[in-house]
Amino acid sequence: MKIGFIGLGQMGSAMAANLLKAGHDVTVYNRSRDKAEALVGEGAKIAATVAEACHGEAVFTMLANDDALSAVVHGEGGVLASLHKNAIHISSSTISVALSERLTKEHAAAGQRFVAAPVFGRPEAAAAAKLFIAASGEPGAIAAVAPLFEAIGQHTFVLGEEPKSANLVKLSGNFLIASVIESLGEAMALVEKGGVDRHEYLDLLTSTLFNAPVYKTYGGLIADRKFKPAGFAAPLGQKDIRLALAAGEALNVPLPLASLLRDRFLTLLAHGGEDLDWSAVGALAAMDAGLGD
Amino acid sequence: MKIGFIGLGQMGSAMAANLLKAGHDVTVYNRSRDKAEALVGEGAKIAATVAEACHGEAVFTMLANDDALSAVVHGEGGVLASLHKNAIHISSSTISVALSERLTKEHAAAGQRFVAAPVFGRPEAAAAAKLFIAASGEPGAIAAVAPLFEAIGQHTFVLGEEPKSANLVKLSGNFLIASVIESLGEAMALVEKGGVDRHEYLDLLTSTLFNAPVYKTYGGLIADRKFKPAGFAAPLGQKDIRLALAAGEALNVPLPLASLLRDRFLTLLAHGGEDLDWSAVGALAAMDAGLGD
Amino acid sequence: MKIGFIGLGQMGSAMAANLLKAGHDVTVYNRSRDKAEALVGEGAKIAATVAEACHGEAVFTMLANDDALSAVVHGEGGVLASLHKNAIHISSSTISVALSERLTKEHAAAGQRFVAAPVFGRPEAAAAAKLFIAASGEPGAIAAVAPLFEAIGQHTFVLGEEPKSANLVKLSGNFLIASVIESLGEAMALVEKGGVDRHEYLDLLTSTLFNAPVYKTYGGLIADRKFKPAGFAAPLGQKDIRLALAAGEALNVPLPLASLLRDRFLTLLAHGGEDLDWSAVGALAAMDAGLGD
Amino acid sequence: MKIGFIGLGQMGSAMAANLLKAGHDVTVYNRSRDKAEALVGEGAKIAATVAEACHGEAVFTMLANDDALSAVVHGEGGVLASLHKNAIHISSSTISVALSERLTKEHAAAGQRFVAAPVFGRPEAAAAAKLFIAASGEPGAIAAVAPLFEAIGQHTFVLGEEPKSANLVKLSGNFLIASVIESLGEAMALVEKGGVDRHEYLDLLTSTLFNAPVYKTYGGLIADRKFKPAGFAAPLGQKDIRLALAAGEALNVPLPLASLLRDRFLTLLAHGGEDLDWSAVGALAAMDAGLGD
Repeated sequence: MKIGFIGLGQMGSAMAANLLKAGHDVTVYNRSRDKAEALVGEGAKIAATVAEACHGEAVFTMLANDDALSAVVHGEGGVLASLHKNAIHISSSTISVALSERLTKEHAAAGQRFVAAPVFGRPEAAAAAKLFIAASGEPGAIAAVAPLFEAIGQHTFVLGEEPKSANLVKLSGNFLIASVIESLGEAMALVEKGGVDRHEYLDLLTSTLFNAPVYKTYGGLIADRKFKPAGFAAPLGQKDIRLALAAGEALNVPLPLASLLRDRFLTLLAHGGEDLDWSAVGALAAMDAGLGD
Repeated sequence: MKIGFIGLGQMGSAMAANLLKAGHDVTVYNRSRDKAEALVGEGAKIAATVAEACHGEAVFTMLANDDALSAVVHGEGGVLASLHKNAIHISSSTISVALSERLTKEHAAAGQRFVAAPVFGRPEAAAAAKLFIAASGEPGAIAAVAPLFEAIGQHTFVLGEEPKSANLVKLSGNFLIASVIESLGEAMALVEKGGVDRHEYLDLLTSTLFNAPVYKTYGGLIADRKFKPAGFAAPLGQKDIRLALAAGEALNVPLPLASLLRDRFLTLLAHGGEDLDWSAVGALAAMDAGLGD
Repeated sequence: MKIGFIGLGQMGSAMAANLLKAGHDVTVYNRSRDKAEALVGEGAKIAATVAEACHGEAVFTMLANDDALSAVVHGEGGVLASLHKNAIHISSSTISVALSERLTKEHAAAGQRFVAAPVFGRPEAAAAAKLFIAASGEPGAIAAVAPLFEAIGQHTFVLGEEPKSANLVKLSGNFLIASVIESLGEAMALVEKGGVDRHEYLDLLTSTLFNAPVYKTYGGLIADRKFKPAGFAAPLGQKDIRLALAAGEALNVPLPLASLLRDRFLTLLAHGGEDLDWSAVGALAAMDAGLGD
Repeated sequence: MKIGFIGLGQMGSAMAANLLKAGHDVTVYNRSRDKAEALVGEGAKIAATVAEACHGEAVFTMLANDDALSAVVHGEGGVLASLHKNAIHISSSTISVALSERLTKEHAAAGQRFVAAPVFGRPEAAAAAKLFIAASGEPGAIAAVAPLFEAIGQHTFVLGEEPKSANLVKLSGNFLIASVIESLGEAMALVEKGGVDRHEYLDLLTSTLFNAPVYKTYGGLIADRKFKPAGFAAPLGQKDIRLALAAGEALNVPLPLASLLRDRFLTLLAHGGEDLDWSAVGALAAMDAGLGD
């Protein structure tokens, strides 16, 4: 397929590379051009503007937040103004439910199609084309882009016809991961202050009831106090919890554990955590308990 | 080995049955005699008193809480008064760190040995001899009872020489499970009120990042709203969170997520949850959100 | 002074009436005209449009939230487009810090002046001209409108030259009141379930350490379970806690008690609390404890 | 009246002094004798043992916690063993509901009377005989000791015939004060990081809606960051929140704000707060927000 790809961060670059590898004709755009140039060797064409990336059958966007996505979608030369009739905007960014609802309406009004397709997985999974994709939108549109999902992920879950459903599920998924981080942080602070080695403890957990990758990955980072480089930076985690809370607020769903996470992320950011992996939230319980690093 | 087994609830009965199956000579005691009699067919001898269950090389205790354990250990004819010199009390109950410390001293003073060996796993795992055992105590004592652990579990983690370490780890483990329940409860309330089917949602979660038994088991119970019969009753969950908080208090370790769970369990108990499985805590977020059933 | 007044809810109507009583020439505007007409007998002129209320030396706005204020300020015929050079926009609404910052810039760019002057006090205090005013903005502007503040309040606190300071203080003040509501709700649930009459209990509190109007007013409403009619409706309370949290988020200030309040308000709203006084949050602890009505 | 007084900390010494000043015949006992000797000049007789302080019509106990009270009440030569028939034990310590229930039964069985009479007020109020007394117990007993209450306080609230009621109310009162501390701590952190001076802010609060002594006293300590010397030490605050939570637990009353306070106190104690006033909890929000000192 002839497609565009906008947003070449760690995740986006890996996804675009896998689309190229699968034989698709990909025109890439990134605000800072060097990241686009890095993909030329793999066959990418470079777009000088957002509009130039919107001339194919579909365009992926993979950006950091609502503002970044809105900046490329709205306004002159944006995705909305540039995409052909019936072409598909595949939004893989983790964005608010509110923005997803807005884009659904706007693309429909412009005769275009909108598919929400946020992904689960860290940069290593993106590089290995092992992402999980949560997709929602009009069935015909999802069928049309299925080959693209196959190129970047190991499985696609279709979650109905309203694009916002996939965005809500993505936000809730990140909330669940952050909950694992917090719970491990508290449990490790407790047993460590009680005299148990935190690595031995994690080994027990992940060999028994908690033998899931999410416990191994984040538990390992917390036990090692290894929060740099960030696979997923703390401000992104904070944003996702904020969006989950906002979605809950719009629906009158109280989320006390998400509220706790909100405050944990703000504490982390107030103490210079901007550049740390979001798993650094898992070290705050130990700090509260007076344990040194 | 010639051993005793005191406390024949769902878990204890299954463990005692597996000890018999492995060829050990087991004398069982339970306050209500009918549960002891149910094991006679599998080769158990029945003790009419606690003391009669304490004449072997070791005695297991598997009781509901501190009070129940203290009732069989202390006082006339109790475990402390009845166990032979050098014999081993294997405490598999989920008890407080404080009681574990006390028993460690008391058994030492009586010339006996004390091993804390709480187990991880629900009744089905106990029946299948697939428990995980967290054991701590004097290395010689642990080595002596290793064959017993093999008869009831799939793996034993040795956590050092202080019995209380295993108790602390057990409490923290139950805290982690309860955290999973709470986080799933909140996530499901959010997506359900947003229009996503909770069973489909759980399927996505457990096929991807959360493909651990703990998410499948508890997620399934929450999605099904199936809290009876209780595999692990709400009052036991509440007790364990209380003990984890008490351990944190003794060590000056704040545990905000455990505090949230504490209040959830009390809400559940205040609304007639005594007989429900502890996963019913995972339905409270939906109730707060005004979702029916 | 010749002034305008936009927004004639319970609070705004009482403030406008007191401005008229003090002899000011007041042109009033309200979306539904009947509330404006009710003030004609007290000497008010009626504006048919927002613009007509903006032809004096100053214009008050007293609206329910950011959206309502923005609706009258921005766009054709709005306050920004209509106010004379050097005239003063006095914003008494409880709005976000972010909107206050935006209006400060916009009015300056239009050659107008902006004073934030949110008020403390319930409708009865507004009627009695006993409000407390928290005012911030350029000193000359504040001096110019001081006679207006005297007409509606018992005291004005000047909080510096940045309008947003007064908005932040207002939000924090409502947070403090909501904290009183929550703390009284929990304390009353506890003593009531323990057998103490909640009215006797409140009498003890308010005769001793808690002899402040805020404890008497809200404690009385909670003890009486009298949440209708709403002096300050639950959705407004929810909004203010949201804005306090948003202000904290912009400044990286975690606010766990505000987070708890957030979830309480959502629970209330999810259970039909739209029309109740915000003190109804003080009945939720009793509900969680299983206490009837 | 001829009475005894056991426990001469800051509060107890002031209360005993006021009883002497009112003309009562007071025999005082303290574990470290020097505090008893300090009262000899005011007319006190010194008891060498607990028993010697129990020979009058009534004996006050004013001790730090359950253990300290139990230590003087139970065992050989304790209050229970020493008090005359029909004499009255007035317990002014802040103790658990559970211990109050136990003492009620034990004194009744010994033919003695038990009155719970915890007090509200800081050391300065105790010195000025301005305490508030929450008393509960058998009406005849309360009437008999009314003159003693008059000597130490400004008003006595009678809360029914079950002694535990007064203890529960006392615990809830300290919870309410701690809630004020936390709410002020969060509000001050928010406005301070937003550029408002915290002393000016407190002045506004305490001149308006929050003009109660509790806001002035604790607000002042928090604004000044003056947590030494401790009027009421952090470990005592932590104890009272623990006892309030325990009372809630026994009654199935969830108390999320008390849970938050619990974790705040543990954080404070984990960071060397043992000797600080409990209002130091009000500085933790600022610390979380990254504000220095």
